[in-house]
Amino acid sequence: MKVIEFKNSELKIIDQSALPDREVFISLREWQDVAESIEKMKVRGAPAIGIAAAYGYCLGFLENKNCGKKKMLEGMLKVKKGLLSSRPTAVNLQWALERMEERLLHSATEYEREDIYAALVDEANSIKKEQLNSDKKISRNGSRYLRRVGKNLNVLTHCNAGAMATGGWGTALGVIKNAYKEGIIRKVYAGETRPRMQGAKITCYELNKKSVEHELICDTAPGYLMYRGMIDAVITGADRIALNGDVANKIGTYQLAALADRNSIPFFIAAPVSSFDFEIDTGEEINVEYRCECEVLKINGMLTAPEGTRAVNPAFDITPADLIHGYVTEKGVIKKPDELQ
Amino acid sequence: MKVIEFKNSELKIIDQSALPDREVFISLREWQDVAESIEKMKVRGAPAIGIAAAYGYCLGFLENKNCGKKKMLEGMLKVKKGLLSSRPTAVNLQWALERMEERLLHSATEYEREDIYAALVDEANSIKKEQLNSDKKISRNGSRYLRRVGKNLNVLTHCNAGAMATGGWGTALGVIKNAYKEGIIRKVYAGETRPRMQGAKITCYELNKKSVEHELICDTAPGYLMYRGMIDAVITGADRIALNGDVANKIGTYQLAALADRNSIPFFIAAPVSSFDFEIDTGEEINVEYRCECEVLKINGMLTAPEGTRAVNPAFDITPADLIHGYVTEKGVIKKPDELQ
Repeated sequence: MKVIEFKNSELKIIDQSALPDREVFISLREWQDVAESIEKMKVRGAPAIGIAAAYGYCLGFLENKNCGKKKMLEGMLKVKKGLLSSRPTAVNLQWALERMEERLLHSATEYEREDIYAALVDEANSIKKEQLNSDKKISRNGSRYLRRVGKNLNVLTHCNAGAMATGGWGTALGVIKNAYKEGIIRKVYAGETRPRMQGAKITCYELNKKSVEHELICDTAPGYLMYRGMIDAVITGADRIALNGDVANKIGTYQLAALADRNSIPFFIAAPVSSFDFEIDTGEEINVEYRCECEVLKINGMLTAPEGTRAVNPAFDITPADLIHGYVTEKGVIKKPDELQ
Repeated sequence: MKVIEFKNSELKIIDQSALPDREVFISLREWQDVAESIEKMKVRGAPAIGIAAAYGYCLGFLENKNCGKKKMLEGMLKVKKGLLSSRPTAVNLQWALERMEERLLHSATEYEREDIYAALVDEANSIKKEQLNSDKKISRNGSRYLRRVGKNLNVLTHCNAGAMATGGWGTALGVIKNAYKEGIIRKVYAGETRPRMQGAKITCYELNKKSVEHELICDTAPGYLMYRGMIDAVITGADRIALNGDVANKIGTYQLAALADRNSIPFFIAAPVSSFDFEIDTGEEINVEYRCECEVLKINGMLTAPEGTRAVNPAFDITPADLIHGYVTEKGVIKKPDELQ
């Protein structure tokens, strides 16, 4: 599944906002276009926007490479800030850009300009490659762990934490795809994930491509399905994980974790180590993005409510650590983030 | 707000499936059209479909009035069954039709055919009038009770339990409109209520008409708003209430009750006595309607997921009695249904 490709100073991404109707690849040559694509969620998912931003940083360097060193560094600080502000909640964006900046600062003292560019592209490629490797490890660790829950499981996931979200194989959906292949999972329920419907549009698209049995449900239904004993486990991705284990993820995740807890169903997070933010102690400190009310009020350009209605649109929520049964990472399944330190 | 009107053997209803875009009144002259309008949710809400079915029963009598008595009664049994099968979950439909049947059986032994028709219309009018009276009492009882929770409350409601749902003034939304006027409520959050979006389409329409401050939220958001302390109380309607207090209501209600419980927020049901079904002991016995998967898969005729995706679409869920802080009825706010007996 091709999600993010970089070649000849051109970043090609699949426009996820056009899925599932059309598979459109768009070509980005300026860092500003990359920032805009992240902001408009043409590329989305915490790890995927980290990778896209890393390549965006490379494109930003092309814009600044002919300036003097001081001006170039100033320009690159602007590039970093611009990319960083495209989405506020995911930590991978920040993590990837800091890694790129470090490589720049390290190269800038030693290399010619062309070599610096090559080094930056090399760094971005590494981030992408490491993500794929980490996705594969997460998937193996997760399906091994799920085996303990049982066989022929019906599993619920939310939003999209698949190949589209990571630019690789996927985190939560990677685990699910692996566990399905191994007969641990029987069926996947995909929550549609209003307002942007990533579950309906992107998760169903990926599961369909991989012939994984699945059914779509509205965000009003998971509680009832749990209550009726139709769900054996819940697994989602994460945008940022605090030191105490609180998780910021797509709006609706907290609800699923709370409902799973009430119905004694295990709830797992699958995320790479880069999604853990040891700089913040608890979820309280995570900046939750509020997006345009238009996302709630319009579907396919048509109003869902009377003209003039106002809406509140938090894009993420915070799931307290005590609702989470385990964090599936590339280093294994952990119970608390400090096991990684 | 005109929702259901009966005059000159013609039932006029506002087509709720066209709201909020268009205010269309449709005219029904055959009982089969009434059954179809209930099935297609042009008229919806437990009490409103009870009233519509009662008038549908009158129209059914016109079809059968010229037969012999035995044939007429057989015909009316068919009418009752046809109307009853239009929606399976709400108890008011059954309650209203049984009341109509009783009036028919009582009149049939004594009256001429024209007089029987007049008696049936009189009975249906009574059901409608009693509903309005009961709505008004529920609203007063509910807002008096809410005053104990506090002032300037932010209240969440789900689906639509307003004038549109009862053919009168509304149950849950009736309480809300009263309490807003009295300054007890500051703002209403309306949950959009996928798949049919009655919250977005109908509740926002009603609140807008009555100038009640409100904001629309997706069904993924209530948990987070509760977690952030933005919601002080939750109040919804009910389609059927079992003897032990379990409530069948629009899919998503159980989730709200469970999340309110976790966040120590009071959760109330507002419903007329006719929504209580003393024939069933617990929610387990309530027949939950599953509706067409197309309601999930298509919005305004456009697919939300890839072609061929399957969906599960329970239209109602069961909220266990232990999550409910009180039932606001026309006879007062009760803690347990057996207080009504």
